[in-house]
Amino acid sequence: MQEIKQYIEQHKQRLLDELFELLRFPSVSADPKYKPDVLKTADYVAQKLRDAGADNVEVCPTAGYPIVFAEKIIDTDKPTVLVYGHYDVQPPDPLELWKTPPFEPTVRDGKIYARGACDDKGQFYMHIKAFELMMQTNTLPCNIKIMIEGEEEVGSNNLGLFVKANKERLKADVVLISDTSMISMENPSLETGLRGLSYLEVEVVGPNRDLHSGVYGGAVANPATILAKMIASLHDENNHITIPGFYDDVIELSNQQRQELNAAPYNETEYKKDLDVAELWGEKGYTTFERTGTRPTLEVNGIWGGYIGEGAKTVLPSKANAKISMRLVPNQSSEKITQLFTDHFVKIAPPSVKVTVTPHHGGEPVVTPTDSVAYRAAQKAITESFGKAPIPTRGGGSIPIVALFEAELGIKTVLMGFGLDSDALHSPNEKYDIYNYYKGIETIPLFHKYFAELSEK
Amino acid sequence: MQEIKQYIEQHKQRLLDELFELLRFPSVSADPKYKPDVLKTADYVAQKLRDAGADNVEVCPTAGYPIVFAEKIIDTDKPTVLVYGHYDVQPPDPLELWKTPPFEPTVRDGKIYARGACDDKGQFYMHIKAFELMMQTNTLPCNIKIMIEGEEEVGSNNLGLFVKANKERLKADVVLISDTSMISMENPSLETGLRGLSYLEVEVVGPNRDLHSGVYGGAVANPATILAKMIASLHDENNHITIPGFYDDVIELSNQQRQELNAAPYNETEYKKDLDVAELWGEKGYTTFERTGTRPTLEVNGIWGGYIGEGAKTVLPSKANAKISMRLVPNQSSEKITQLFTDHFVKIAPPSVKVTVTPHHGGEPVVTPTDSVAYRAAQKAITESFGKAPIPTRGGGSIPIVALFEAELGIKTVLMGFGLDSDALHSPNEKYDIYNYYKGIETIPLFHKYFAELSEK
Repeated sequence: MQEIKQYIEQHKQRLLDELFELLRFPSVSADPKYKPDVLKTADYVAQKLRDAGADNVEVCPTAGYPIVFAEKIIDTDKPTVLVYGHYDVQPPDPLELWKTPPFEPTVRDGKIYARGACDDKGQFYMHIKAFELMMQTNTLPCNIKIMIEGEEEVGSNNLGLFVKANKERLKADVVLISDTSMISMENPSLETGLRGLSYLEVEVVGPNRDLHSGVYGGAVANPATILAKMIASLHDENNHITIPGFYDDVIELSNQQRQELNAAPYNETEYKKDLDVAELWGEKGYTTFERTGTRPTLEVNGIWGGYIGEGAKTVLPSKANAKISMRLVPNQSSEKITQLFTDHFVKIAPPSVKVTVTPHHGGEPVVTPTDSVAYRAAQKAITESFGKAPIPTRGGGSIPIVALFEAELGIKTVLMGFGLDSDALHSPNEKYDIYNYYKGIETIPLFHKYFAELSEK
Repeated sequence: MQEIKQYIEQHKQRLLDELFELLRFPSVSADPKYKPDVLKTADYVAQKLRDAGADNVEVCPTAGYPIVFAEKIIDTDKPTVLVYGHYDVQPPDPLELWKTPPFEPTVRDGKIYARGACDDKGQFYMHIKAFELMMQTNTLPCNIKIMIEGEEEVGSNNLGLFVKANKERLKADVVLISDTSMISMENPSLETGLRGLSYLEVEVVGPNRDLHSGVYGGAVANPATILAKMIASLHDENNHITIPGFYDDVIELSNQQRQELNAAPYNETEYKKDLDVAELWGEKGYTTFERTGTRPTLEVNGIWGGYIGEGAKTVLPSKANAKISMRLVPNQSSEKITQLFTDHFVKIAPPSVKVTVTPHHGGEPVVTPTDSVAYRAAQKAITESFGKAPIPTRGGGSIPIVALFEAELGIKTVLMGFGLDSDALHSPNEKYDIYNYYKGIETIPLFHKYFAELSEK
């Protein structure tokens, strides 16, 4: 590890500068106006892989944004680690809430503030630098393949096709992903599960045009009110979701699993203070960790209807819309839940309105086995790098392609992320701690070392 | 009446051209970016009043948009009619739904399509042309004062101050307003009541920033969901408003009044077809006319929160907002209802969120007595002009200043409007029928004639 630390120290400024350059590309996949920038980002990533010493670097075209692929095969008898990441980022809105511009990385208190700093550029770039480090110190212990896509934030629609068409090229023994967080640098942790995702847009239409709310108010159903009633009915008084069949496939944790999960450090006062809320909210009978890691949930991500501009307008709107998503846990199926939601939502609509439900991208929930070679390798790497064994945690977020990799390539994923909950993913003023960035570059070569070692036994 | 018809026939093109010029001004009072246009509109109105032969024409400054005043005093022993109208218009949004530009008046099938065509430019301009007609034919039978303001769509905040400061100048025997509609040209009608208005904006704030809905979803209250629940709770299963004390001051109609009201022509199939809804909606136990004319109601005019742009964003929003207004009936008080709503809404908010309620402009409900000289004059004028006596109706919309005039000037208002429900006030593709425009110019001088005659007895 001394050699690792020395290398990082020697190159620390350049390691940061390159990341900053990467962060400057506004690679927003959700909005077509950023297309040229997204493509330039892919080229930058490919170049950096070449510079780090990878072979067969290719910017592979898809029906959408390209997938950057690279590899270094040292010995076909050695195990192969497939690294996955994404170079696209969330939209930066709302712009006015950023302290410094989202695509102008700025350091404050040892943190890099930029859209994508943590999700996912800061995190995947650690792997490219760790690879460079292993090449430069001649310590690469196993084969490595690196696949960085450009559509994760919009559902990775073309990744599935790419994976299916490149099974030989992507053959590996484990997938390694850094796109999650740790409890803290003092309490390192490893994600052992991810929630799945079902995402839909709903539209409630009443009258065929906006109406004068005086002339028609009281005689005609107001789509905004109806939508509110329908959304309100989706949770009961215990904040339990009311969609019939929703919980049928949910696997409850055993008492021991619950105990382990809840043993992780948690300070409710701090948690509330960080969010500035007087009280938390959630499904009755479950703790915060259980609610965000082991229970399925339903959220309104956006809602709009009627006049939302400046001033007053007495309109009875023609329609109202919402974006709704559900986080899923094993063994719920994204497709089945999407269908259950759709059927239920259409059913509860009163006859005075017309309702349409449009599904977006989804993803399956996953759990990573803690007795696997890969998990134990990550455990050892973190213990050595942090001086402390990682706590196993269950993540709330979704990385849909993890289930895809298992289904298509037959391999498990290790989720070894170095982010923090305070990183404000998907929010304004997203950041990534510089300490965490270097710590990741330090820990990743150790993973490769122990993965190679443990695989031999 | 022959002379009236002849005059209109002789000048019919000019009468239309001048209205079109008036309609071209985008006098949107709700949005500050239109300020120069609003001011130009006031000047145009003043000029037209001068051209028509009025005296003492003045564009009177206020803390907001100016009030245009003019008069013609022929004989201090004659009664005085005070005409009121407004030269400001509703915002045109959503623009993409207009077939032709909102401020480029276009005729299709004998209808003038433009924002403000009916509300209120087409309607108040009839009075200026009727005044010109009476001046040109030397048939002005009583004194006339004309007051056209520029802030009706945003609450007429400065009108009250103006009226209070100009009681002598505005002294009159009746207020005459054309800003309402008739059942149809085959079934002329007179508005005998208007609903009041209470308008508020509410904001529900949860966490101090937008959150990643995977990381936090299930552990933190979602303001969009909470807002939906709060809005949903405002109507019970009979669509009766649940705010405590809301109905306390409501005067129920007598059986006879209900019979008269419901005797007006009404075709529910046509009503539904025009709006393209399968079923109507409203307070159980009341007919459509009662629901829109004699019962108080609550509408969501706008709702928004979270990510509402293109594509998917898995955010748990920091806050959600809504614009909510209530239509009131005698004897509800706008101030009291605003307070009841505010107290109730704050009270039903769960402790996991912070709620603020911001009141906007309001207005009192009114009923105009059908046995008054002014009402009977309007009745006679319409009977002569249309060949049929007008049906008394109760209007759903609000004209807050009617209560103001009674309180400050001690005079009643006659609501003699020539619009139609299909005019799409406050909606895209607002229109005013050319037939109705000329019909109003024809009827208004008859009102003045009969008002003078009946006042003498």
